[in-house]
Amino acid sequence: MKTQPPPRRSFASDNNAGVHPEIIEAISQVNQGHVIAYGDDHYTERAVTQFQKHFGKDIAVYFVFGGTGANVLGLQALLKSYQAVVCAETAHINVDECGAPEKFTGCKLLSVATPDGKLREELIEPFLHGVGFEHHVQPGVISISQATEMGTVYKFEEVKALANFAHKHNMLLHMDGARIANAAVSLNTTLRKITGDLGVDVLSFGGTKNGMMYGEAVVFFDKKRAADFKYIRKQGMHLPSKMRFISAQFEALLSGDLWRRSAAHSNRMAQLLAQEIKRMPQVQLTQPVDANGVFFTMPKKYIPVIQQKYFFYVWNEETSEVRLMTSFDTTESDIEDFVALLKRTVK
Amino acid sequence: MKTQPPPRRSFASDNNAGVHPEIIEAISQVNQGHVIAYGDDHYTERAVTQFQKHFGKDIAVYFVFGGTGANVLGLQALLKSYQAVVCAETAHINVDECGAPEKFTGCKLLSVATPDGKLREELIEPFLHGVGFEHHVQPGVISISQATEMGTVYKFEEVKALANFAHKHNMLLHMDGARIANAAVSLNTTLRKITGDLGVDVLSFGGTKNGMMYGEAVVFFDKKRAADFKYIRKQGMHLPSKMRFISAQFEALLSGDLWRRSAAHSNRMAQLLAQEIKRMPQVQLTQPVDANGVFFTMPKKYIPVIQQKYFFYVWNEETSEVRLMTSFDTTESDIEDFVALLKRTVK
Amino acid sequence: MKTQPPPRRSFASDNNAGVHPEIIEAISQVNQGHVIAYGDDHYTERAVTQFQKHFGKDIAVYFVFGGTGANVLGLQALLKSYQAVVCAETAHINVDECGAPEKFTGCKLLSVATPDGKLREELIEPFLHGVGFEHHVQPGVISISQATEMGTVYKFEEVKALANFAHKHNMLLHMDGARIANAAVSLNTTLRKITGDLGVDVLSFGGTKNGMMYGEAVVFFDKKRAADFKYIRKQGMHLPSKMRFISAQFEALLSGDLWRRSAAHSNRMAQLLAQEIKRMPQVQLTQPVDANGVFFTMPKKYIPVIQQKYFFYVWNEETSEVRLMTSFDTTESDIEDFVALLKRTVK
Amino acid sequence: MKTQPPPRRSFASDNNAGVHPEIIEAISQVNQGHVIAYGDDHYTERAVTQFQKHFGKDIAVYFVFGGTGANVLGLQALLKSYQAVVCAETAHINVDECGAPEKFTGCKLLSVATPDGKLREELIEPFLHGVGFEHHVQPGVISISQATEMGTVYKFEEVKALANFAHKHNMLLHMDGARIANAAVSLNTTLRKITGDLGVDVLSFGGTKNGMMYGEAVVFFDKKRAADFKYIRKQGMHLPSKMRFISAQFEALLSGDLWRRSAAHSNRMAQLLAQEIKRMPQVQLTQPVDANGVFFTMPKKYIPVIQQKYFFYVWNEETSEVRLMTSFDTTESDIEDFVALLKRTVK
Repeated sequence: MKTQPPPRRSFASDNNAGVHPEIIEAISQVNQGHVIAYGDDHYTERAVTQFQKHFGKDIAVYFVFGGTGANVLGLQALLKSYQAVVCAETAHINVDECGAPEKFTGCKLLSVATPDGKLREELIEPFLHGVGFEHHVQPGVISISQATEMGTVYKFEEVKALANFAHKHNMLLHMDGARIANAAVSLNTTLRKITGDLGVDVLSFGGTKNGMMYGEAVVFFDKKRAADFKYIRKQGMHLPSKMRFISAQFEALLSGDLWRRSAAHSNRMAQLLAQEIKRMPQVQLTQPVDANGVFFTMPKKYIPVIQQKYFFYVWNEETSEVRLMTSFDTTESDIEDFVALLKRTVK
Repeated sequence: MKTQPPPRRSFASDNNAGVHPEIIEAISQVNQGHVIAYGDDHYTERAVTQFQKHFGKDIAVYFVFGGTGANVLGLQALLKSYQAVVCAETAHINVDECGAPEKFTGCKLLSVATPDGKLREELIEPFLHGVGFEHHVQPGVISISQATEMGTVYKFEEVKALANFAHKHNMLLHMDGARIANAAVSLNTTLRKITGDLGVDVLSFGGTKNGMMYGEAVVFFDKKRAADFKYIRKQGMHLPSKMRFISAQFEALLSGDLWRRSAAHSNRMAQLLAQEIKRMPQVQLTQPVDANGVFFTMPKKYIPVIQQKYFFYVWNEETSEVRLMTSFDTTESDIEDFVALLKRTVK
Repeated sequence: MKTQPPPRRSFASDNNAGVHPEIIEAISQVNQGHVIAYGDDHYTERAVTQFQKHFGKDIAVYFVFGGTGANVLGLQALLKSYQAVVCAETAHINVDECGAPEKFTGCKLLSVATPDGKLREELIEPFLHGVGFEHHVQPGVISISQATEMGTVYKFEEVKALANFAHKHNMLLHMDGARIANAAVSLNTTLRKITGDLGVDVLSFGGTKNGMMYGEAVVFFDKKRAADFKYIRKQGMHLPSKMRFISAQFEALLSGDLWRRSAAHSNRMAQLLAQEIKRMPQVQLTQPVDANGVFFTMPKKYIPVIQQKYFFYVWNEETSEVRLMTSFDTTESDIEDFVALLKRTVK
Repeated sequence: MKTQPPPRRSFASDNNAGVHPEIIEAISQVNQGHVIAYGDDHYTERAVTQFQKHFGKDIAVYFVFGGTGANVLGLQALLKSYQAVVCAETAHINVDECGAPEKFTGCKLLSVATPDGKLREELIEPFLHGVGFEHHVQPGVISISQATEMGTVYKFEEVKALANFAHKHNMLLHMDGARIANAAVSLNTTLRKITGDLGVDVLSFGGTKNGMMYGEAVVFFDKKRAADFKYIRKQGMHLPSKMRFISAQFEALLSGDLWRRSAAHSNRMAQLLAQEIKRMPQVQLTQPVDANGVFFTMPKKYIPVIQQKYFFYVWNEETSEVRLMTSFDTTESDIEDFVALLKRTVK
């Protein structure tokens, strides 16, 4: 048994946070009587309506348990096994899903190194050499994360360019939107304007990292691509039986401004932290702080000292780069307290 | 938009019920501060301790999102792709998981017809002819459901015999325990005495159908078989990030007698219903009512009439057999009301 | 080291035979100089032309190493993993390919018992109940073997009816033609008239069991279904590099009447054997002898005695049913000698 | 229909060559009578004995149709799907098998850039960071090609170091030996001394590129790892039915010095070519010529001119690097003629 309680709030990850009270409340509200399982209920209808309000009438949307499931099953809907997914080396699908994409889809991932977690057309072009040759996997999908795993956010025109490039070369554009709300806030725009409107074909819409308990959504901007997704989801072991409890969370998130409020708050906390980091000569930001992640290098020896009070992850052992994530419940005093501790330690 | 609200409580399935209030309360209790994601938290430790209390110190237990995941990943841990799973034709893994076992494990399912959903050694024996011949899949696991999908419950000696048969022939015994609590109550015993103590190797322990919101557990009675299960779970897309909210549910279910109370209630409601059915000449029970499912035939023309008020599923169109499931929240007046309606309709 | 040479010719299987001398000769003929590997050579063009001559201009045809590969990859071209293949319980894909179809395609096989290895519409109908329900695999292909594994041959109208049934229900018809030549001879028709003309969508065209050394072909009667088969074949590990040596065999088989001559001979040898069997009261034919397999029951104790001289397989231990296969090189004196031995032994 | 015959001999690939006459002769020799299919015959026993003579009594060896099958199924025997294969970016398994390894094994390939197609320990070390963390695939096998796809050959101590590194970190060493004979000749050693004796765990032993018609072998240096390989091979669609015709080829290759004679010849032809290339200022060798491949850059505009007479592949469009492969049947006059043509063209 662990003897030490964990710190009240850490900077380890936005999924170390709990559940937003409004989400908990929404769950309780729908806990009445019986409804048909597996999504054929009116709570799910209402949640779908919210998604349509945000993303357009013509989408198809499916709820799944978690983010890896959303990514992998969304990709499965777009690909045949001899096709490949082009992604950044740092992509969650490439490094953090224990090979689930390869195992389930049979597809190869073609990953490329990037300075900031963002793909660019010229990085993808070399993979086109093998198109049409049966010895080589055939690039079928470009997958990008918005916000990226490096805390950066693709600009409108960057996503648009990748969508155009994909479609020009008979590929599709997949977006891992585990932190899409943070990206939308960062770009001061709507959810639709940075996804479907730019040419994204399939989106993993993240709920868990933005204050939900569990549940993600796979959004298809062309319904036809989702024609058989209900089978893919069930065979993919991601059809929740008591669906209403995911639907209620999504409705709570999307019907008002909770999604935006929470993301805006966590982005702002990251900005607060970044501003302080910039002022300290002993530590250096390594990435633009576009969303709710702050990456910086600091002297290695101080890391464990600070981790004792505020846990966070070391991103790169070699360069002594650390990653701090903020979340909907991070407080200004968390930031102040952390910064004070950091200053005391490294000075 | 549906204009009619669903009936307050149906007999469609135990997963059409909501969440037990004590479970909801437990979820709220753990919604405080940050804890490490993915299960490395003390709530999960406490839940694991509860499992050990019930199943023995030497088990390994892993939580997953849902029941299909629990079954498929538990099987994956036991099998190589050229091996096969022997199961009853009616098994959930065989008919209700959209081929997830085959897709994920690569294994063939060898299913056999049974009168009551229960496997027996003599039904499995024919599959042993091919052992050692490379042209044939090699039986590697016997999978049984307890309680079965037909509402029946294996007796102690029946499970024991299958475990012995399996082990004698170098196979393992898997138990789909989506309704294991109902079975334990039915046999008036503990969870352990009808699983590990009888030779079950891996158990899918069901939470959702016994009043949880989501979450099932894979219990290994020999820890060595779970040596790499953490990778199988992650690659299998079933590692919940905010694990504490599953753990809290399991702790609530298992630390006191909630698991037994809920199952006992739903079993009792099934008995109540069955007793009434037996008294009615126009309808015939088709299976022993051992747990919380009641199967009976009734004149086809009356089915839709009754379904309007109390929804339930037709199990067999040809024979006009229906299935009614009770759950933790079924009330005596639900039964009385249903029976009165049935009597009025079919008389 | 085995000390006994095997019998000169057995009745074990048509793939225990060697290679027809004309095939060997054809191989030698093309062994000159270099040609582009993987099928982009003029020998392969010539072989494809032969296939078009037999099956029509609009087919697409691909050569693979062996029969299991032909079946599995042909099915892969037609199916998504949540779909299922309906087949007879005795189908090669169901019992003799060690689960290769499930492993590679991810699809479930839905097998049904038949008296004679032949599917019929009414046996398939029950699988349509689940169409449209995401919990159930979706029947996508009906697969039949022609000739069947029981030595029987589907009649024209039987295949036609299955093709119609398949297409009516949005399924496709796959034919395992490992012994398609024997079937064509049995029905006294052309290869096309019992395949594409009846509505077969994809055919595994067998070479090895009809005197080739190795090599089978996957024939698509609608080219569009083969649009990506070159990738499926390569990813399926069945793209031969020195393709010309398969192509030469197919050209030799199909350019004259070798395919028919060989199949006609082996069918006739089976008839000869069957006629003798029918005259013997101690043994009973169990299946019509439509092609080159003869199934009969005989007193169990005599089986090993006869196997010492002429090896064959016991098909069913319980009923003491044996299977004898004839091949292109079986001689009349083989039959006479075997029958004499059988008579002496069982009298 | 192609109107132009292909050039008599090209430098496109060693698999554009035909079959060595001694191999053809061996095939004819075993084409007599019936033998049990699928490898249970004395020709196969004799071929296995030859493998044991070369590689040691304690190996297990299995014949398959082709090289991709040998690689993928050998890897499958060593890996679970959450494990990964570390390989060079240029590895055949990584770029030339259309994703067959990922599709069949479910494993991720972790590829690294190398200057010469050769892995080194320090290139693999970064992949060890994720060992033990369930979010990351677990490196399970290091796969090297000997000779490499770049025409280079690992030195004894290089292979030894990789084997030690692998075993120290609980990994295994797989060798793609499509051109292992060329490597053995290059190092002037036996087949065993550069494989099992150095710690290689599983070897794909190439036949086709060294004068065989088809057929490769999977050699396990520890029999225990092959315990279930017969099922993997069958489920992997690579169990040839008329096995004797592969076995006869291997016996011919290995019982005398044919394997060495052929490889030595093709290596010598590559040396001859390389010597001439070195003397020409307009073209530059880009890799050491250790085996039977010659890589060099040449002015882009001359490439198609020369390809008209002697076909070969452009390896790198950007750098105008070409690859010429020699084979057992390349003649000195082929080299002289090609060199003369090259000189005339580029001067």
